[in-house]
Amino acid sequence: MKKVCIVMGSDSDLKVMEGCINKLESFGVPFDVRVISAHRTPAAAEKLAKNAAADGYGVIIAAAGKAAHLGGVLAAYTTLPVIGVPIKSSFMDGLDSLLSMVQMPSGIPVATVAVNGADNAAILAVQMLALGDPSLTEKLAQFKADMQAKVEAKDAKVSAEYSK
Amino acid sequence: MKKVCIVMGSDSDLKVMEGCINKLESFGVPFDVRVISAHRTPAAAEKLAKNAAADGYGVIIAAAGKAAHLGGVLAAYTTLPVIGVPIKSSFMDGLDSLLSMVQMPSGIPVATVAVNGADNAAILAVQMLALGDPSLTEKLAQFKADMQAKVEAKDAKVSAEYSK
Amino acid sequence: MKKVCIVMGSDSDLKVMEGCINKLESFGVPFDVRVISAHRTPAAAEKLAKNAAADGYGVIIAAAGKAAHLGGVLAAYTTLPVIGVPIKSSFMDGLDSLLSMVQMPSGIPVATVAVNGADNAAILAVQMLALGDPSLTEKLAQFKADMQAKVEAKDAKVSAEYSK
Amino acid sequence: MKKVCIVMGSDSDLKVMEGCINKLESFGVPFDVRVISAHRTPAAAEKLAKNAAADGYGVIIAAAGKAAHLGGVLAAYTTLPVIGVPIKSSFMDGLDSLLSMVQMPSGIPVATVAVNGADNAAILAVQMLALGDPSLTEKLAQFKADMQAKVEAKDAKVSAEYSK
Amino acid sequence: MKKVCIVMGSDSDLKVMEGCINKLESFGVPFDVRVISAHRTPAAAEKLAKNAAADGYGVIIAAAGKAAHLGGVLAAYTTLPVIGVPIKSSFMDGLDSLLSMVQMPSGIPVATVAVNGADNAAILAVQMLALGDPSLTEKLAQFKADMQAKVEAKDAKVSAEYSK
Amino acid sequence: MKKVCIVMGSDSDLKVMEGCINKLESFGVPFDVRVISAHRTPAAAEKLAKNAAADGYGVIIAAAGKAAHLGGVLAAYTTLPVIGVPIKSSFMDGLDSLLSMVQMPSGIPVATVAVNGADNAAILAVQMLALGDPSLTEKLAQFKADMQAKVEAKDAKVSAEYSK
Amino acid sequence: MKKVCIVMGSDSDLKVMEGCINKLESFGVPFDVRVISAHRTPAAAEKLAKNAAADGYGVIIAAAGKAAHLGGVLAAYTTLPVIGVPIKSSFMDGLDSLLSMVQMPSGIPVATVAVNGADNAAILAVQMLALGDPSLTEKLAQFKADMQAKVEAKDAKVSAEYSK
Amino acid sequence: MKKVCIVMGSDSDLKVMEGCINKLESFGVPFDVRVISAHRTPAAAEKLAKNAAADGYGVIIAAAGKAAHLGGVLAAYTTLPVIGVPIKSSFMDGLDSLLSMVQMPSGIPVATVAVNGADNAAILAVQMLALGDPSLTEKLAQFKADMQAKVEAKDAKVSAEYSK
Repeated sequence: MKKVCIVMGSDSDLKVMEGCINKLESFGVPFDVRVISAHRTPAAAEKLAKNAAADGYGVIIAAAGKAAHLGGVLAAYTTLPVIGVPIKSSFMDGLDSLLSMVQMPSGIPVATVAVNGADNAAILAVQMLALGDPSLTEKLAQFKADMQAKVEAKDAKVSAEYSK
Repeated sequence: MKKVCIVMGSDSDLKVMEGCINKLESFGVPFDVRVISAHRTPAAAEKLAKNAAADGYGVIIAAAGKAAHLGGVLAAYTTLPVIGVPIKSSFMDGLDSLLSMVQMPSGIPVATVAVNGADNAAILAVQMLALGDPSLTEKLAQFKADMQAKVEAKDAKVSAEYSK
Repeated sequence: MKKVCIVMGSDSDLKVMEGCINKLESFGVPFDVRVISAHRTPAAAEKLAKNAAADGYGVIIAAAGKAAHLGGVLAAYTTLPVIGVPIKSSFMDGLDSLLSMVQMPSGIPVATVAVNGADNAAILAVQMLALGDPSLTEKLAQFKADMQAKVEAKDAKVSAEYSK
Repeated sequence: MKKVCIVMGSDSDLKVMEGCINKLESFGVPFDVRVISAHRTPAAAEKLAKNAAADGYGVIIAAAGKAAHLGGVLAAYTTLPVIGVPIKSSFMDGLDSLLSMVQMPSGIPVATVAVNGADNAAILAVQMLALGDPSLTEKLAQFKADMQAKVEAKDAKVSAEYSK
Repeated sequence: MKKVCIVMGSDSDLKVMEGCINKLESFGVPFDVRVISAHRTPAAAEKLAKNAAADGYGVIIAAAGKAAHLGGVLAAYTTLPVIGVPIKSSFMDGLDSLLSMVQMPSGIPVATVAVNGADNAAILAVQMLALGDPSLTEKLAQFKADMQAKVEAKDAKVSAEYSK
Repeated sequence: MKKVCIVMGSDSDLKVMEGCINKLESFGVPFDVRVISAHRTPAAAEKLAKNAAADGYGVIIAAAGKAAHLGGVLAAYTTLPVIGVPIKSSFMDGLDSLLSMVQMPSGIPVATVAVNGADNAAILAVQMLALGDPSLTEKLAQFKADMQAKVEAKDAKVSAEYSK
Repeated sequence: MKKVCIVMGSDSDLKVMEGCINKLESFGVPFDVRVISAHRTPAAAEKLAKNAAADGYGVIIAAAGKAAHLGGVLAAYTTLPVIGVPIKSSFMDGLDSLLSMVQMPSGIPVATVAVNGADNAAILAVQMLALGDPSLTEKLAQFKADMQAKVEAKDAKVSAEYSK
Repeated sequence: MKKVCIVMGSDSDLKVMEGCINKLESFGVPFDVRVISAHRTPAAAEKLAKNAAADGYGVIIAAAGKAAHLGGVLAAYTTLPVIGVPIKSSFMDGLDSLLSMVQMPSGIPVATVAVNGADNAAILAVQMLALGDPSLTEKLAQFKADMQAKVEAKDAKVSAEYSK
C-alpha cells in the first residue's frame, strides 16, 4: 500500500498533528512523519517532494502555521496530491495560515482542511488512497457508521435527559 | 477510468466552473456536470452522493457560494473524496463560502481550494485519480513542464525588456 | 401548544444551549432536545425536518459550530421557521459559524441570532409561537418589563454610587 | 390575516427591498412599507413598534445599512418578532450592518438574514405567519416545490450540455 | 461647569469604564454615571438624551458592547456631542461594537474612540468642555506634560539598562 | 467664533471632504482647509497643531487614508479636540484607515467618525463649538428637524406607493 | 553599485510593478526584472536566490499575489534582504497576499510594504543600498524635499481656494 | 560599524522586544534601546530620527501597538531604513498595529515584519547592515546553517519516533 508522508514545519505542530497520526494508524495506513521547514530546510523539502512518488508515498500532508508556505513548496515539486493543515498560532486563530495555504495560484493546488483539522487531513488522505485500494473503502464506511452510532447514542441520552 | 462529478449549487456558477470543465477535458478525464442545490434539491444531493461510487465516480467536485453547504452535504453521504470550490459572490469576495467549506468538523473533510479556484479543483481531482492510473501521472508531469516553460518564456521576455 | 425542537450538532454545544433550554422552560413552552449532526447523522436530520410539523413542532432551533450547516440542512426539508445559533468554537470567535448560517441563499432562510445567542433563540421562538397563542404575548410583555426593572435597579445603584 | 410591516432606514434601500415586497405579494400576504430612520425619526420608530401588534402587524421586517440600529430599536418597543435585513452599503460589503443587527444582546433578538437577503426576509415572515394560518403552509410547500423544479430543469439542461 | 454624563449599557461595563470615571475626576469635571440599555430601557435613554442639555450636561459618553446601539440612540435625541466607547465582549475583540458605533449614517455622528478606550473618552470630553472653559485647557496641557515626563523617565531607564 | 481647521493628507481626499466643507459652510462656521501630510510635511503638521489654539481654531478635522497617522500626529501637539475621518482608499474599504485612527493609545484621543464620514465630522465639530456658542445649538436643532422632515416626506411617499 | 533584482510571480504583476521600476530608474540604481513563480519555476527561484549575492545583487524585491510564497521562498536561499510587495488580486484586496508575506516565521524575514506598494519597495531598496553608498543618501534627501515641496504647493492651492 | 536604534512606543513592549535585543547582541551589532511615543513624546521622536544618521545609526527598528504610528513618524524625518514591528495588544491580535504600519503611503516606506516579529526585525537589520559589512554576511550564513541543523535534528528525532 502507498504510504502517507506527514510533514510539519515545526515540531511544535506535533501536539495538533497527533490527531492525524492516530487517525492514520487506526486505518492501518503506513506513514512517515517529518519535520521540514519550507524556509529553514528548503533543500529537504525539495528532496522529499521530488522523490515522494518513487519513495512509495501516495499522499503528502503538510502542516504549518503563520505564513504557511510548506504545502505550496512541496506541491511545486510533485504531482502527488498535497493536503494542507493550517496550524493555529498566534494571529487571528490561524487566518494567516489558512489563506497562505488555500489561496494557491492556478496550476498548483493544495487540498486545504480546517485550521488545526489534523483528523480530517488523515481521513482525506485515506479517501484518496482508497481510490486504488478497496479495503480502505470498507474501513471508511465502517468509520462513518461508527461516527453515526456515537452521535445517535448522544442524541438518545441528551433527548431523554433534557426534553420537556 | 473513474469519472469526476462536478456539482454546482447554481447554474450561475458555470462561468467560473468552465475552467474546471476545460481542465478535466484537457487531461482526458471523463466527467459529468450537475446542478444540485443543497437546500433546494437536497434529495438529489443525497441520491448523487450515496450512489456516486457505484455510478463510477472517483471524485466529487462541489462548487457553491454564500453559505456553501454543498460540499459538506455531499461528503455526509459518501466516502469518496469531495473537493470544494468556494464561489465568490457578493460578500467579502467569498469569505463566507470559503469558511463554510473549509471549516468542516472532524470526520467529514472537504478538500478546499482557493475561492473561484476551478482550475485547481480539476488538477487536484486528476492528482487523486492518478493514484490508481499511472497514465495520468505522466500527463500531470507534462502539465507541470508546460507551466514551467510558459513562465520561463515570460521571464526571458520581461527580463530582456525591463532590466536596466 | 406547538413545541420547539432544539437541535445541536454536538453535545458539546449543551453548555451554551442550556441558556436556551432554561429560557423556554421559563416561558412554559414544551420542547425536545436533540443531538443531530448534519454530516454524521444526515438521515436523522432529514427525518426530523420532514416530520417536524406533523410531530407538533412549530419552530426549530439549530445550534452548530465551525462550518455550521445544520440550520440550512434542516431548513431544506421543512417550511417551519428555523432559528440558527452560531456556536463559538476555535476560529475567530465563531465568524465561520455565523457566516455559514446567516448567508443562506435565496429561498431557504435561517433566522440567525448572535454567536452563542442561545437565550435570544428561545425568546425569538416564543415570539413566533405567540403569533398563534396570546398567552405567550402576555408572558413576553412581562419578560420585557422584568428586564426593564432589573436595568433600572442597576441604574439607581450605579448612579448613586459613582456620580460626582 | 396579520400584516407584515416592512421598515427601511432610507428610501435608497428600496431597490434591494423590492425583492421582499414582490415575494410577500406573491404569497398574498398584506403589508405596509415605511421609511423610518432609527436616528433621524426615532419617535416614528417608537410609535410604529409600540402600536404594531394593535395595528394588526404580526411581523416587522427592518432593513438598514452601516451602523444598522433600526431592527434593535424597533425590537426594543415590541414583542413581535423582528426580522433584520443588513443592507450592503460601502464598507466591507455590509459587514458593519450584519454585525450591528445580528449581535443583539440577550433579551432582545433580531432574526437576521443574509446581507441584502430581502427575499429570505419575506419567506421567513411568511413561515412565521403560517404558524397561525395553514393556508400559508400550503403556499410555502408549493414555493419549495417550484424552487426544486427550477433547479431540476437547470440540472437536466446543464448535465446534458456539459457532461463528457 | 457643564457636566459629563457617562452612560453604559450594562453594569458589567463598569470595570472598563472606571478608567473614564477616574480620569474625569482627576480633571475635576463633574459627572453622572448611568446604566441605561438602548434595548431594555429605551424610554430612559430617550428621556436622558432629550433633557441632557437642560440638565446641565455638555457631553455624553456612551459605552456598550456587541450590537452597540446606545451611542446612536442617544445621539438621535440630542444635539450634544456623544462620545462612543466600544466595549470588548466576546466576539472578535469588540469589532462588532466598534462598527456598530463608528459607522453612523450621515447626520448623526458618534465620536468613537478605541475599543475599551475609556480613558480617551474622558480626555476627549474634557477637550470638548475646554472649548468653553480655559481652566480645563491648562489642565489638559499639564496632563500632556505629565505623560511626556513619564515616557521620558522610562526612556532614560530603559536606554541606560539595555543599550549596548 | 472659533474656526475649524480641516486638514487632509492628500488633495485626492478633497472629493470626499467637500461634504465636510459644504456642511460647515451651511452652519456658518468659519474654517480653513489645508493639505498636510503626516509623513511628507511633518513640520507643517507640527506647526499647525502647536499654534492651532492661538490661531483661533477650536476643532481640527483630520482626513487621511491607508496608514492614517494624520489625526494622531496632530493630536500629539495640541489639546484641542481632533476629529478623524478615515478615507476609503484601496484596501478593504478603508479598514486600515479606520483602525489607524480609532485605535489611539491612552492619553491622545482622536474622535473618529465613519469611513468617508465627512458630513458627520462637520456636524460633530459644530456640536463641539456649540458648547461655547448657543446660536449653533439652535442651528443644530433646526438641522435635526430638517432631517426628520425629509425622512417623513419619504416615508409618506413610499408608504403610499408600496403598501398593499 | 550593487543591483536590485525585481522578481514577480507573474507577468500580470507588471502593471503594478512599473511603479517600482520607474522609481529605481529615477534613482539611477541598476536592476534586473524577472518573472519567477515560487510554484511553477521553483528551481529558477532557488538558483536566483542562491547566486544573488555573487551575481551582484544587494537587495531582492519579490512581488506576488494570493498565497504569495515568493518572498519567503527566495529568502530561504539567501541572506540578502528580501522586500515583499503583496499584490492585490481578487480576494479581500490582497489580505491573503499580505498575510502570506508579512507573517514569516522567526529566522527568515521578508520586509513587507503595503499592498501594491511598488514605489515604496523601490525607495526601501534604495535606503538599504544607501547604507554602503553615500551618493544615494543625497538622492533620498532630495526625493524627500521634492515630495515636501509638492505637498506644500497643493496646500497653498487648496488653502487659498477652499478656506472661508 | 553602524548601530541599530531600537525604539519602542511603550516599555510594556520590552517583553516582546527582548527577542530583538538578544538577536542583535548575538550578531555583535551595537544598538541603543529607546522608549519614545509618537504621541506622548513626539519631539523626542523627531529629534531621534533627524539625527539618526549623524548619530551613527544605520537602521531604526520601531515597535508599537494599536494605532502604531511610531514607524511612520520616524520614517518621516529620516532617509534611513525603518523596520516596523507591530505589537500584539488587545484587538484582533494586532491587526490594528499591522495595518497601521504596513499600509504606509507612497514615498515613506516602513519595512514591516510579522506581528510580534521581534527576532526577524533584528535579522532584517543585520541583513541591511551587511550590505556594507562582509563580516555580517558570514555571520548570517552561519545563523542560517545553525537553523537548518536544528530543524534537521528535530526531523531525525520525530521521524524516528513517529513514523510507522
